[in-house]
This record gives sequence, C-alpha cells and structure tokens, in this order.
Amino acid sequence: MAKEKKQVEQITARDVDFAQWYTDVVKKAELIDYSGVKGMFILRPYAYALWENIQKVLDGMFKKLGHENVSMPLLIPESLLQKEKDHVEGFAPEVAWVTHGGNEPLPERLCIRPTSETLFCEHWGHVVHSWRDLPKLYNQWCSVLRWEKTTRPFLRHREFLWQEGHTLHATAEEAVAETERMLEVYADCCENYLAMPVIRGVKTEKEKFAGAEKTYTIECMMHDKKALQSGTSHYFGDGFARAFDITFSDKNNRQQYPHQTSWGFSTRTIGGIIMTHGDDSGLVLPPRIAPVQVIIIPIAQHKPGVAEAAEALRARLLQADIRVKLDLSEQSPGWKFAEYEMKGVPLRLEIGPKDLEQGQCVLVRRDDGQKTAISLDGLEETVSSLLDQIQQSMFDRAKENVDENTFIAHTVKEVREIIETKGGFVKTMWCGDLACELRMKEEAGVSSRCIPFAQEHLGDICPCCGKPAQKMVYWGVAY
Amino acid sequence: MAKEKKQVEQITARDVDFAQWYTDVVKKAELIDYSGVKGMFILRPYAYALWENIQKVLDGMFKKLGHENVSMPLLIPESLLQKEKDHVEGFAPEVAWVTHGGNEPLPERLCIRPTSETLFCEHWGHVVHSWRDLPKLYNQWCSVLRWEKTTRPFLRHREFLWQEGHTLHATAEEAVAETERMLEVYADCCENYLAMPVIRGVKTEKEKFAGAEKTYTIECMMHDKKALQSGTSHYFGDGFARAFDITFSDKNNRQQYPHQTSWGFSTRTIGGIIMTHGDDSGLVLPPRIAPVQVIIIPIAQHKPGVAEAAEALRARLLQADIRVKLDLSEQSPGWKFAEYEMKGVPLRLEIGPKDLEQGQCVLVRRDDGQKTAISLDGLEETVSSLLDQIQQSMFDRAKENVDENTFIAHTVKEVREIIETKGGFVKTMWCGDLACELRMKEEAGVSSRCIPFAQEHLGDICPCCGKPAQKMVYWGVAY
Repeated sequence: MAKEKKQVEQITARDVDFAQWYTDVVKKAELIDYSGVKGMFILRPYAYALWENIQKVLDGMFKKLGHENVSMPLLIPESLLQKEKDHVEGFAPEVAWVTHGGNEPLPERLCIRPTSETLFCEHWGHVVHSWRDLPKLYNQWCSVLRWEKTTRPFLRHREFLWQEGHTLHATAEEAVAETERMLEVYADCCENYLAMPVIRGVKTEKEKFAGAEKTYTIECMMHDKKALQSGTSHYFGDGFARAFDITFSDKNNRQQYPHQTSWGFSTRTIGGIIMTHGDDSGLVLPPRIAPVQVIIIPIAQHKPGVAEAAEALRARLLQADIRVKLDLSEQSPGWKFAEYEMKGVPLRLEIGPKDLEQGQCVLVRRDDGQKTAISLDGLEETVSSLLDQIQQSMFDRAKENVDENTFIAHTVKEVREIIETKGGFVKTMWCGDLACELRMKEEAGVSSRCIPFAQEHLGDICPCCGKPAQKMVYWGVAY
Repeated sequence: MAKEKKQVEQITARDVDFAQWYTDVVKKAELIDYSGVKGMFILRPYAYALWENIQKVLDGMFKKLGHENVSMPLLIPESLLQKEKDHVEGFAPEVAWVTHGGNEPLPERLCIRPTSETLFCEHWGHVVHSWRDLPKLYNQWCSVLRWEKTTRPFLRHREFLWQEGHTLHATAEEAVAETERMLEVYADCCENYLAMPVIRGVKTEKEKFAGAEKTYTIECMMHDKKALQSGTSHYFGDGFARAFDITFSDKNNRQQYPHQTSWGFSTRTIGGIIMTHGDDSGLVLPPRIAPVQVIIIPIAQHKPGVAEAAEALRARLLQADIRVKLDLSEQSPGWKFAEYEMKGVPLRLEIGPKDLEQGQCVLVRRDDGQKTAISLDGLEETVSSLLDQIQQSMFDRAKENVDENTFIAHTVKEVREIIETKGGFVKTMWCGDLACELRMKEEAGVSSRCIPFAQEHLGDICPCCGKPAQKMVYWGVAY
C-alpha cells in the first residue's frame, strides 16, 4: 500500500487549502492540461467523457421538448455585435478580435463569439416570415470565448464548452414559459444527475445577462460554502427582434415582433461536481454521469482463475448496461485503489482467490468507503441498486451542506458576521434598490445570488435602508 | 398537385446546370443559410441532424477501436504553429489571426486552428514519458478555419465541422497500421452508411498533407463524374515528435521518438451525399443516416379514423426503432409529397380512407419512385426490409456510375479526350515524377486523385515521359 499512501499524500487536504486541493484534483485525476494560451485549457479524455455524459442527458431532454440542434458561425462581424446596445456593452470588452484572414487585413473586424444571440437573430431575419414559422426551438453545442483576466480550470476559461439554446416565439407568454421550462431542465440535470441541489430564482437587475429583460438562475453551494451559478435562462422580450428588425405576420396578417429566449449550461458545472462531492482522496463522481461506474480490481491476479473470473464479471456488468472497466495492468492493487479513488469511480469491485472459493466479491463504495462482501448471484441487481443508493446519498449529503449553511439575517452587520465566521448563503429581505445591493457587496462582501422562487417572509424592511422590503434574496460569495 | 409542381419547378434540372441544381437543393431542402461572413455557413436543423447521424456512426467506430475524445484549444500561438516547417508553410497562408483580446493588443498573434497537430504535440510533450503512456488514441469533434478565396456550401467553407483524430505510437509499424485502419473506417462509413463507393489509395507527394510522410485517401465520384476527396488519413513518421521534442523511454529505458498519425472526416461529405444521390426532385438520403426514414402522409386526413390510424402507424414504426415522422399539418398531400421528396426522405407512407377499409397502406420509395400497396400486418418488417433495399440500391447505382465512367488511357491526349468528352476517372501508368503529374494537369486538366491500393498493370511506360512506369494512378477533375 506504499504507493497508495504516496499518491494520496500528493494532494493537499481539502480543508487545509480548498483552492490548492481543487487544482491538485483537476491535475491528478487527469481532467485538465494547460495549453500555451492562458485560460485555454485542454479537456483530457476523462473530463471530456464526463462532459459527453452530461451532454447526453441534456441533449436528450432538449430533443424530447422539440429542440433542434444547429451550427452557427464562430465569428461575428463587429457591426452585427453592435446592433443590440446593452448586449454589446456587456460583451465587447471581453471578446477576441480577428483582424487578418491569411495574409490580408479584413475590411471589418470579426469577434470570436462570446455567445450567439446576434447570429441567431440574423438567421431568423432570413427564415421567419409567418406565424407558421414559429416557434423556433434551437440549440447548439460549441465553444465560446471570453477574454477573462483571471482564469481557473472549469470555473473560468477564456474558451469554454457549452450549449446555448435560442428560441423565438409568437408571444411574450410563450417565451416566458420557455425560459422557465428550460431552467427546470437545468435544475433536473443538476439535482438528478449531478447530485447537486439547486436554489431556483431570478437574478437582480444588476446581475442579469447583457440585453436580457429577465435572467433566471440555479445556484449551487460548494463544499467550501461558496456559491456556483450553474445554469442560466434568459428572457429577452422583443428587444433583439426590434434591434434586428425580425417580424412575422400573425394569423390575422398583422406584422408582429417575436419574443426571444436563450439559455446556457457549460463545462463550469464539472468544477461544481468536483467542489460539491470531492474529498481528500480526489474526485467523487455521481454514478449517473461517471464515465466508469464500476472498476474491477483483481487481487492476486496471476493466481489461477482470478483474471478469468474478473473478465467474466466485467462481461456480466457490461451486459447489464453498467459502465464497467477491468484493470489487469501490472500495477499493485494498492496503486489501483488509489488511482480509481482519485478518479472518483463510484464503486470498486475486488475479486481474489478467496472470494472465488466462496462465490463472492467485495464491493467498496467511493462516497463513504463502505465495504461489503456480496454473492456473485444477482451481482447485476446488487450493483445497480448500490449505484442508485450512492447517487441518492451524494445528493442528500450535498443537500445537508446547503441546509446547514443557509442562514437568515436582518441587518448588514449580521450578514457580514455570518459570512466571516461560517460562510454559506444568507437570506434577507430587500427593498429592490441597486444602492442597497451595492452596499451589501461593499460592507458584507456578498453578491446577490438570486431572488428565489420560494419566497419567505422574514420581515418587513430592507436590512440596508430600512425601507419597505419587496422580496427575499439569497446572498453569498460566488465563484 | 399544383403546389407540388410549383416547388419542383423552382429547382434547376440536374443535367442542365449541375452547380445551380446543387445550390438550389442546398437551399430548398433547408440545409444551409448564408451568414454575414463569406464562407461561414449556418447548418440548419436538417443538415445538422444529418451530421449528427454521421457523427454517431463514426464516433461509435472510433470508440470501439479504443479512441478517446478530447477538447483542444481553438487558438494556436504563432510560434507553436511554426515549429514544424512543412506544416506551417502549408497552413500559414490560409489562417485567420487573432490580434486583440478585449481592448488590448496581444503580445503574440494567435491563429484559429486550421487543424490541431501542433496542439496535440504540445500536450503530448507534457503527458508522454514512458512506453506505458503509449499509444495515445485521441479524437476531437470541432470546427476548424481555413481562409479560402472561393467558398461553396459543404464543399469549401472557411469554417467547417469535422473530427480530427490524432494518435501517437511507439513504433512506425504501429502508426502506419493505424493510418491504414482509420482509412478503412472512413471507407466503411462512406460505403455502408452513405452509400458512396470509394477508391482507396495513397496521395502523390504533390497532393499529400502539409507535414505528412504519407497521405491515404478515399475518393468518390459524384453524379457529374467529378471526384470528391472524402476522407484522409496521414502518417507523419517521427517528424512532428522531433520538431516538438517528444520522447518516451522504451522498455529498455532508451529514449525514443514516437510516431504519429492524424485523420479527418468533415461536413464536406454531406456535399458528397447530395451530389452522389440527389435528383431533379431534390435530396435522396441513404436510409441509414436519414434524419427521417419514413414520412407518413395521411390522405383526406379529416375523414373519420384517418389521423388516428396514421398516428397508430407512427407509434408502431417508432417502437420498431424506425425514425418516423407524421405530417398532420394543413398543407395538401401534394405539397407534402414535394416537400419530403425535396428533403430526400427514403420512404413515404400514405394512408387514406380506402386503405383503411382494406387494412393496407401505400409505400413509395424516394430513390426510384416505386409505389406498392402493402398489408398493415407486419408493416415493421416490410418497412425495415425496404429501407435495407433502398440503401443497397443507392450504393449499387452509385457504383455503376463509377464503373461506367472509369476509363483506361495510355497517352496524355487520350486522357484529355476522355475528360473533355465524357468526364470521369482515368487510370494510367505513371513514372512517379512531379513533372509528369504537372504536365497531366496542364495538358489534360486533371489532378492525380490517388495511387490506388488495387494496382493494375496497364502497360510499362509513363504516358507523359515514356520512362518506365512505377504505379497506376487515378486522375480526375476534383471538387
């Protein structure tokens, strides 16, 4: 077990230095490599397999609801980006500009898409004419660029992978319903697949997306009690349609402006999975999206029958649609244990000569380390049910973290004290004024996470200005 | 049927003006829209669904062979692109350059990847140390940019979608075997899924990929008898490894340079599908990759029981894993016939009151227009078997086109005459000299397509210079 110890020692303990622990896990679990361009990270096979599993979940949900995938251009002419005033103000300072094609300067600068609202609008201007052409329910899987100053694996890339959904509707009601429906899709994915409980709500005016009328968000709490915005859904009204002059003739042959939404979910969530579930031995992956759900490690693999038995178990689990891997390499079992713990494989199956004699194998849960010897009869059912249990336990543990670290405050000072001593989310009432939101940032060091759908009445006045309260808000320190 | 006629009349006849016919189909079948940047096309839902089906086929084949997907950065620093001399010479003239990030000029220009060999090499330099780390079998699905002067939907984009496989091996033999294996994967996909017969072979020195030692290719013949290069696989030897100083210690602890391959398959093949199978009514899609395999069109759909029966058939076919769509819109049956013919749906199922009485429906093949009334009993089997027959017929018809339009020549004059009067592929012997290849281009207007694996002995001398022949070559006019 010497090698196991060695590898585990190489990562910083989670509660000693969370940021360093995070960086260690990202490298040791072989998720990320650094490229020559700051903030443009390489997603190695294990990270990409994780992303593919998330894609499969979301893409299936989108298609079930009637969304169609498309591919829009990578580059946006400067004049096109500028058509919607708020949008360009929000994004222009952080885009990368292409100025030359081949050896020639371009007549107009082109930016690499930071998001594609303007491109979808241009296209819709070509193809939407009548109410028969609506709704348009589009999505694209791609990467976008935002020229950030500070970058961090998964959490803040200059280039990141995501999906961006863009839809166009005949009425405002329909577009609002779509915005809310897609937030619910993200919440479903987070809670039921990534085992990350979410707070659903609406962003304040200050925090909303550039050009949106309303931004919906799901907010998650990480192990260090900081917040991670994990998916957003925007309602644009007809602002973009007016700026791009997109109209359609309704059933009464009147020209109308359509209403628009967009919504995005990115590889940033992989950072969320790491920071929600990981521990001092490395990653802990929710079974539903783990690239490998069960790792089979033979003990004394050169003893007669062991390798064959291990292979037979692999075949059985594969047959039962379980993502299983068998490691027959020459590394020691101890080395292998540490390796797949680091990679967060939910379940380890050990099989050795003694187990063979007794017609059993040993299962070890990654999430809580529980070890059980079980009969090889009905292995498939046992494993499936254990994977379900792990998925549920991981969610429950994360939910406990949110519940235990969500506090109520009635003054700015209380908010500051909670954040300084315990961290977490703080709920307060709020008058709705930007000035009070800014003061909360200034004096308590928190940003508004959302105005939750699930409102509570905590009092009658705003803790900042003492004026009548309008809403309850979640505050926190965010990634 | 007035509307049907009208729509069909809107596209140019294929044998009148092939280029215009192609452009018409691409627009009328709703595959492509033009964006504000020349050569950057929008793939609309129908084109993207087609691409997704091709992706599914290839991605499945790659994974079965042990390849892993990754995501590499979009941007390449100029100094990195320049590390391999032949490679940069080939690509530098046609890349797009990023010079500003946000409002600041960058210290070094970054190009948008035209292909990613240099990025994979940089990464491998970080992670490959020992023979245990080999082989690396990587792939990525992404878009790349090449700043072409002339552009055309699918065939020549400034930005196109593709997959690029990149692999690294301990020995030259292993890398060559990989290069050949992946060409065979492409041939399999083309022939057995896209119904496009291929000629497998090797490119001449002149036509090979920038930086490669050897480029393998599959060449297809379009309906207008021109050639389309449909997939290429490159063997690099250890040239890149030396340029990027990638070494590994072998089993005897000696430092060695690894050997490398790359291979790519792009949305250009969608252009190939259109030009191989399309006809005067529009697209004709091979069933195995058609987004919709069966379109159900109810006749007199408001008559009692018709819509319900159509829906029941849809459910039955869906249950049998057939990609089926039911069109219950208010358009006339004639309009719908023309619409789905334009979109190349392989099989049309018509059901009306009379069919209901007789417990039957009518099936119409898109490829040859054959119409049969069949019993609703065993519908699933009939449809499945018909889809298989259509797939096979489409391949056979395309193969016939290649066979009938492949000629043998013994002089440059003969080659020119064949190309001018009939078009197609011409096979000749060749001495192997660049001068003769250039003369063939100059005097007969053809480029070498490949030195096929299936060599024939057509004579002893080169038709250009009269010197001893080394190989048989395929010549043609290419897209």
